[in-house]
Amino acid sequence: MRIALAGLGTVGAATVRVLRANAGLLKARGQEIKLVAVSARDKRKDRDCDLSGIKWVDDPLDLAYQDIDVVIDTISGARSLTLEIAESALGNGKHFVTASKALIAAHGVDLARTAEKAELQLSFEAAVCGGVPVLKTLREGMAANRISSVRGILNGTTNYILTHMHEDGVDFETALAEAHRRGYAEADPAFDIDGIDAAHKLSILSAVAFGVVPDISDISTEGIRSITREDLRDAAARGGRIKLIGTAIRKGTRVIQRVQPAFVPLEEPLSRVGGVLNGVEISGDVSGAIFLQGLGAGGDATASAIVADLVDIARGHRSFAFGVPADSLITNN
Amino acid sequence: MRIALAGLGTVGAATVRVLRANAGLLKARGQEIKLVAVSARDKRKDRDCDLSGIKWVDDPLDLAYQDIDVVIDTISGARSLTLEIAESALGNGKHFVTASKALIAAHGVDLARTAEKAELQLSFEAAVCGGVPVLKTLREGMAANRISSVRGILNGTTNYILTHMHEDGVDFETALAEAHRRGYAEADPAFDIDGIDAAHKLSILSAVAFGVVPDISDISTEGIRSITREDLRDAAARGGRIKLIGTAIRKGTRVIQRVQPAFVPLEEPLSRVGGVLNGVEISGDVSGAIFLQGLGAGGDATASAIVADLVDIARGHRSFAFGVPADSLITNN
Repeated sequence: MRIALAGLGTVGAATVRVLRANAGLLKARGQEIKLVAVSARDKRKDRDCDLSGIKWVDDPLDLAYQDIDVVIDTISGARSLTLEIAESALGNGKHFVTASKALIAAHGVDLARTAEKAELQLSFEAAVCGGVPVLKTLREGMAANRISSVRGILNGTTNYILTHMHEDGVDFETALAEAHRRGYAEADPAFDIDGIDAAHKLSILSAVAFGVVPDISDISTEGIRSITREDLRDAAARGGRIKLIGTAIRKGTRVIQRVQPAFVPLEEPLSRVGGVLNGVEISGDVSGAIFLQGLGAGGDATASAIVADLVDIARGHRSFAFGVPADSLITNN
Repeated sequence: MRIALAGLGTVGAATVRVLRANAGLLKARGQEIKLVAVSARDKRKDRDCDLSGIKWVDDPLDLAYQDIDVVIDTISGARSLTLEIAESALGNGKHFVTASKALIAAHGVDLARTAEKAELQLSFEAAVCGGVPVLKTLREGMAANRISSVRGILNGTTNYILTHMHEDGVDFETALAEAHRRGYAEADPAFDIDGIDAAHKLSILSAVAFGVVPDISDISTEGIRSITREDLRDAAARGGRIKLIGTAIRKGTRVIQRVQPAFVPLEEPLSRVGGVLNGVEISGDVSGAIFLQGLGAGGDATASAIVADLVDIARGHRSFAFGVPADSLITNN
């Protein structure tokens, strides 16, 4: 299987490294995966990955015209560009794998429809909870179930801040500064700390869990700026923690979705999800509650999910992107 | 997709109920799944599931000769019969889905080889950790990774006993009696409490994680008969719990496997896996550690895994049963 990669930032470079380091394993598990073309902004930048033998393509929109089977998108932040890359890939008979939650939350249904018509795969496990296969668990592992709720810690940056505030008794600003210092927070941290990143991920989880069109405007969203160390101390005294929790619950034909700081009792596994980890609890009518935890961000964890999507494609597995046909997704109102 | 079911005990009856209750969902997620034939020992027994319109077949070996695509096996305990059912299914062009860990631990490689030659699917998610999709996570969700270790609480009966001893300060015999009373323990509990059930599951996890032939004789196995309430009290005082842990760790070209009671510090999620729950921590070189928890036994949880396997087959997904070709599995010595 021949693939092309757009973006060589942290996630893109990690993907290149994984494809090289575990090439033998990947071949045994599906078929050989050969990275034949890459595209990124600056050709001369040192990226800590071996690009020898791989064709450099200046315009990422040209990747879809290479002799390949799959285009991978690891460009974050530039939604209009990633949308063009996705459309050019699916429009030219290539499967499309992306790590972009913003792309899927906004355009996932349209892209899924395009992919289905062309009998191509659209995959985005890396968009939610990094290396934790939570979308696969919902779409496949729990496919027997009517899902009643999804609850999770979906953003590592805010979870690091809240954990640091709790464990070391520091205030929000100090914890945020430490998150910056460690590379866990963006220069503009609003996307994370105001809960918007978590809302994007929750909208995708809801779509796969309940068959609703992703819509972040339907998610009541509150971040963690107003949380004080006193709040965390009080929560500890009451036998719990404060966590930024994304919740989607089915109520009749509606799905109620919110992202907000919430008290979580120590008896619940989500209370123990510390630092930059993510954790998700999914309740189904047959399996009961299933809990997953792991690294939700970082180059390697995200690359793990991207390459898992590639192995699925290499094995010939085709799934509806949201678990059901795109046309059957319903607007949640 | 037309299917037949062998066994109408707790798991078989739950499978029939799920297929009926969630028929619409299952159709939307893959294709219609139609149960057309069943076989069990006693036709007249009341089984708390609706068998109307389903053909009764006296001999389970005749199921493979029905006009069906898949044979499901939920007969537990009778390994020679389940082996015959498996061979008749795969020998007659039918996919085969089983919940039997004993069958897969002993004959899984031979069956996988037969399935591969015939281009049929052999699936056994239900054989390990009930409704928790741990085999799918290893085989697909973490397909990018070289796995370094798998550690888990793989048996709900012993975990219930240890949890009850810890929480209520009762001794082993009292806790075992309570497990019997609640239906968590078999009439002969040796298979569970001596760690043999956990060893069967660990051997299957090891096969998928490391590509080794399942072999319970390679697993150093110790059960929980000798654990006292004092042991549990001491563990609590040292900041942890005693759990029956199955561990498989890659050391060079070898996999070291054991099942034994072990001290687990409270910082580790496995320490918090209480009652009849199962929990597994899988470490990969790319994703880092991923932790899963959920109901590892019971009719519904097991049926959830069986039906998930069916949906995969309905979607046309074909995977090597152990993640790699059966002939490439290596003996671990």
